[in-house]
Amino acid sequence: MSLDHAASKPHEALAALLRDDMDAVNTLIETRMASEHAPRIPEVTAHLVGAGGKRLRPMLTLAAAKLCGYDGPYHVHLAATVEFIHTATLLHDDVVDESAQRRGRPTANLLWDNKSSVLVGDYLFSRSFQLMTEAGSIDVLRILSNASATIAEGEVLQLTAATDLRTDESVYLQVVRGKTAALFSAATEVGGVIAGASADIVQALFDYGDALGIAFQIADDLLDYQGDTAKTGKNIGDDFRERKLTLPVIKAIAQATDEERAFWVRTIEKGRQEDGDLDQALAFMDKYGTLAATRDDALVWSEKAKSSIAKLPDHEIRDLLAEIADYVVARLS
Amino acid sequence: MSLDHAASKPHEALAALLRDDMDAVNTLIETRMASEHAPRIPEVTAHLVGAGGKRLRPMLTLAAAKLCGYDGPYHVHLAATVEFIHTATLLHDDVVDESAQRRGRPTANLLWDNKSSVLVGDYLFSRSFQLMTEAGSIDVLRILSNASATIAEGEVLQLTAATDLRTDESVYLQVVRGKTAALFSAATEVGGVIAGASADIVQALFDYGDALGIAFQIADDLLDYQGDTAKTGKNIGDDFRERKLTLPVIKAIAQATDEERAFWVRTIEKGRQEDGDLDQALAFMDKYGTLAATRDDALVWSEKAKSSIAKLPDHEIRDLLAEIADYVVARLS
Repeated sequence: MSLDHAASKPHEALAALLRDDMDAVNTLIETRMASEHAPRIPEVTAHLVGAGGKRLRPMLTLAAAKLCGYDGPYHVHLAATVEFIHTATLLHDDVVDESAQRRGRPTANLLWDNKSSVLVGDYLFSRSFQLMTEAGSIDVLRILSNASATIAEGEVLQLTAATDLRTDESVYLQVVRGKTAALFSAATEVGGVIAGASADIVQALFDYGDALGIAFQIADDLLDYQGDTAKTGKNIGDDFRERKLTLPVIKAIAQATDEERAFWVRTIEKGRQEDGDLDQALAFMDKYGTLAATRDDALVWSEKAKSSIAKLPDHEIRDLLAEIADYVVARLS
Repeated sequence: MSLDHAASKPHEALAALLRDDMDAVNTLIETRMASEHAPRIPEVTAHLVGAGGKRLRPMLTLAAAKLCGYDGPYHVHLAATVEFIHTATLLHDDVVDESAQRRGRPTANLLWDNKSSVLVGDYLFSRSFQLMTEAGSIDVLRILSNASATIAEGEVLQLTAATDLRTDESVYLQVVRGKTAALFSAATEVGGVIAGASADIVQALFDYGDALGIAFQIADDLLDYQGDTAKTGKNIGDDFRERKLTLPVIKAIAQATDEERAFWVRTIEKGRQEDGDLDQALAFMDKYGTLAATRDDALVWSEKAKSSIAKLPDHEIRDLLAEIADYVVARLS
């Protein structure tokens, strides 16, 4: 790690390194979220895009392309594509979850209505397909359209699996791959493909994105039960109250006594929650050490992410990607 | 018109002529609406796809490809693509309109929930992009991704324009192009493109689909005010009750006295409707002859559709397409 980066978080260091490209991505996003005929579209989109977010996904595409020596213009299109897919997904997620807050602001479904969120999300999906088509690579289109289908499938699976006590760790992993990792891995993979990298390198980039996405989501689910509200902006136990089965609870249910199981059936499956239930749930998780076990899983995926790119040629960007894999789990300690 | 077709409706005659290809499209749709992990997806999709519908849009793609002498396999993929986009749009439309019935059945949002309709719609959109990618033509991808964006933009525009009394005939036409004609014209255009037809012929096919879609939507909007409930399955005045500005009302508002305008402001803009308002609205439309004028507009677009393909080589399919253009407005007399 060079001294330049020592002062900042690794994704900020990567953003600084890719500043010109990120500026181009932001300009392209601004241009393409416009609509000649329907002013509601840029209003809704600007609300969400303007709220910031780390833009980690488009940055991964730019990083992968640069790492593979790409010097054409289309990594910018693909990075904007990835961010549009992500933004469309957030708009639809907030409708599905009936969320009221996102990135510290009221959600679009609350400020406008569900209709606008559904239709503007559709518009951004379509815009993302236009952008990826401009890159002119059928391989890239195949990867990104497959990722979109995996994302939507993961979201539907979550809909039915979230409150179903039969949901085990393998189903959880499928949901996580769908809702989070599929876009991370597509983001890194298309960066390599557009640069014409070899199959080995493309596979390594895919594996990195896949493992990073899984580590990221497991960490997110863990922080829901042990995070610092001031830092994460989330309240402890939101997933419990929303009856969303995530890894810490799945691990506790797997070991539950009959009596404990009855508790989970009542609170998660039937959703009849009472005062003190969250504390009881946390006590069961503590009894079996499932928060620590979940953290261990996140660390394993973080290590997988790092070892995936260890084989790539030595490069400043490769080192920053490895640091990012550390960073997403560092907040857990 | 040959004797064979005289007995049946023109779209049924076309379906009979294209039976093998339509069977292949239906098989492909069945295969691709499956999901290994999320059984909710084929449940919801089968409910809507199984309810039938005329499959006019995929038939237009097959017809255009055949008319241009195509003998490859990919017109089937593109026809299925078009039907998936249409189905996804219907799922999202029913959420946005809070509809309870579609094709004579309860809607998916009613039988399952809005969440399932939103996410399964997203899945079908993604599946449509996978299918079109398989055809391997960047031109086709450009046309269909542009059409998707135009559809979504038209839907958002309708959201804000529908209850806005400033909506004039040009805005109405934009909405109609978006919500209906864009998919018709893309359906016919890609049929020509995949067949490698000349630019002239592709343009003629596009113009036919565009004009047919507009005639179709104007006819639909007119039937909302003068249709036979038994035949159309719609109740007279649904659009009025839902405060949706369509052509017959837009034409009446354009000529309204101050007093009449106050009526439209109250009933459409503010949505404060009382008993007898629909009769009053029909009386104003009668006063200015706007139902007849709307029918004339539909006929003009139907003629445009026919004249667009008049330049195509003589072919049984061309004649059936012309008959379909007559048919969509014939129900208005």
